[in-house]
Amino acid sequence: MGVVVPLEEKREPLDRLKPLMALVGDDMERVNEIILDKARSDVDLIPELARHLIDSGGKRIRPMLTIAAAKLCGYNDTGHVKLAASVEFMHTATLLHDDVVDESDLRRGKIAARVLWGNEASVLVGDFLLGQAFKMMVEVGSMGALRVLSNAAVVIAEGEVFQLSVSKNIATTEDEYMSVIDAKTAALFSAAAEVGGIIAERPAEEQAALRSYGRNLGLAFQLVDDALDYSGEQARLGKTIGDDFREGKITLPVVLALRRGSEDERAFWQRTLQESEPREGDLERAISLLQKYGALDDTIDRARHYGLMACEALAIFPGGREKSALLDAVEFCISRVH
Amino acid sequence: MGVVVPLEEKREPLDRLKPLMALVGDDMERVNEIILDKARSDVDLIPELARHLIDSGGKRIRPMLTIAAAKLCGYNDTGHVKLAASVEFMHTATLLHDDVVDESDLRRGKIAARVLWGNEASVLVGDFLLGQAFKMMVEVGSMGALRVLSNAAVVIAEGEVFQLSVSKNIATTEDEYMSVIDAKTAALFSAAAEVGGIIAERPAEEQAALRSYGRNLGLAFQLVDDALDYSGEQARLGKTIGDDFREGKITLPVVLALRRGSEDERAFWQRTLQESEPREGDLERAISLLQKYGALDDTIDRARHYGLMACEALAIFPGGREKSALLDAVEFCISRVH
Repeated sequence: MGVVVPLEEKREPLDRLKPLMALVGDDMERVNEIILDKARSDVDLIPELARHLIDSGGKRIRPMLTIAAAKLCGYNDTGHVKLAASVEFMHTATLLHDDVVDESDLRRGKIAARVLWGNEASVLVGDFLLGQAFKMMVEVGSMGALRVLSNAAVVIAEGEVFQLSVSKNIATTEDEYMSVIDAKTAALFSAAAEVGGIIAERPAEEQAALRSYGRNLGLAFQLVDDALDYSGEQARLGKTIGDDFREGKITLPVVLALRRGSEDERAFWQRTLQESEPREGDLERAISLLQKYGALDDTIDRARHYGLMACEALAIFPGGREKSALLDAVEFCISRVH
Repeated sequence: MGVVVPLEEKREPLDRLKPLMALVGDDMERVNEIILDKARSDVDLIPELARHLIDSGGKRIRPMLTIAAAKLCGYNDTGHVKLAASVEFMHTATLLHDDVVDESDLRRGKIAARVLWGNEASVLVGDFLLGQAFKMMVEVGSMGALRVLSNAAVVIAEGEVFQLSVSKNIATTEDEYMSVIDAKTAALFSAAAEVGGIIAERPAEEQAALRSYGRNLGLAFQLVDDALDYSGEQARLGKTIGDDFREGKITLPVVLALRRGSEDERAFWQRTLQESEPREGDLERAISLLQKYGALDDTIDRARHYGLMACEALAIFPGGREKSALLDAVEFCISRVH
């Protein structure tokens, strides 16, 4: 259990998530109730739009991390449930704003909210959910959790702006790319896990371990996501292939293919990332270049590296059901690419 | 001092704000330093865009309320400065998101950030500023202030969505309009004043008085703003006339003119509010209808009513420089229409 590489066995990726799902199942039911409850409003548009997103699901990995981390730390009160719901609301708000920024038409396989209700509603309902997230954190009353999550909110937004500013820039380095995903994805994974330790009032060392676990898991998760965007498995996640490509988003696979490619090939990336609409055959050529240079495999290899670091971080915790579920979750995040 | 009606004297409106500005001047310098400091980021786009907004000024009435309320309550520590900066950041974030929602081209007489940097950057930098606002509140460490301001964030977003859903609807009632401005404007004025009392740890009665003062002042402020949008004074504020009209926003002047008008006139409002671009002469006809039915004067009368309530709310506080500056501020908000 918890061994990340090599991924030889042919288990279904989702099996790796089952121990975590079983561990947090009861608490996640309460998280889901809170999510539905806090998405209520007399202004009809808010629950309509929020329900659209909530019903389209997603695996709710981030709030599961909060619950599991609190359990790993022996927490036995109820504050973790509201913190977990806050984390999911922060994530949902980001998704809503992202769709506006990316001009995405699909989200989790459903038509994006911005297409159905307009950009305005997506911006404002995102603000509403972010406000509800902070309100819930305040209700929990842990100043430490508030500190970590408000900091994450800043870092996430900063990361998104940074992504915007490197977007379409073929000179983007691997370091810059890593900074982007560290901020826009890993920061919330990290905070989600850390607040589980904070609310359980565990020593700083354990909080730091959970922070590190979450961060590295988040990095691995995003790297795999970015590889999936160019892989056939993508359809299973309800997303179209090549979204990042069409949006001119420079992700690690592209960074790697760019630095390994010929002048001609770099010109191809330059053109396609700048143009607002890909031409016939562009996506196919992009995928074949990524394969030619092993860019997708190497992206997954990088993900494995961070996955291992996530597992190492938990070493200070004693073994048991909670720890092993968290280790398996790492493997899930990586193995979903196969 | 502090007498709101009638506004017979011919003092310059801004004179009415001077006592407040003098009272909070030193602290506001620190607020401004914090605002500049917290708008910093290694991601260049953030300070650029934030500076654009910050430099375009605005009178910073909301943070001034926080400072003045804290002083009225005898507060003599430094937490009110960060709370005031948080309030201004919440407001700035709302402006950035509003511009995206309204598709405005101008903001405070300058080209709107969204036109210069794009909607994406406005959404994300708004999120960044909102995150910084919460981070600062957490640094101050007052759970009570966090409760009030996080609640305001939710109410504001809800109000904006509600405004979106009644927008262009000529059946909007005065009550509905009041609900919109209560949420989208008065909630932050109210919270801004209330947290001054909270951080000073004053009794609930005084906190409630400040909340009521802020709320009623906010209502008066927004009513006057909505009247100004159709008045010649508007140019002095660096805004174009008729923005609300072009955006199909139903404000109180229009609500009043609609219910007092003929069938023909209602058809005119119906058409112009639905159409995305006004035709030649539409704005002129709108203004003449507002004048015909006294809709602008009556809107200002309503503002006076709330202004009086704001002043009444402060009655429980002893007289003095702080109270009288706050009372004068009410008069400023109303008299800027003349």
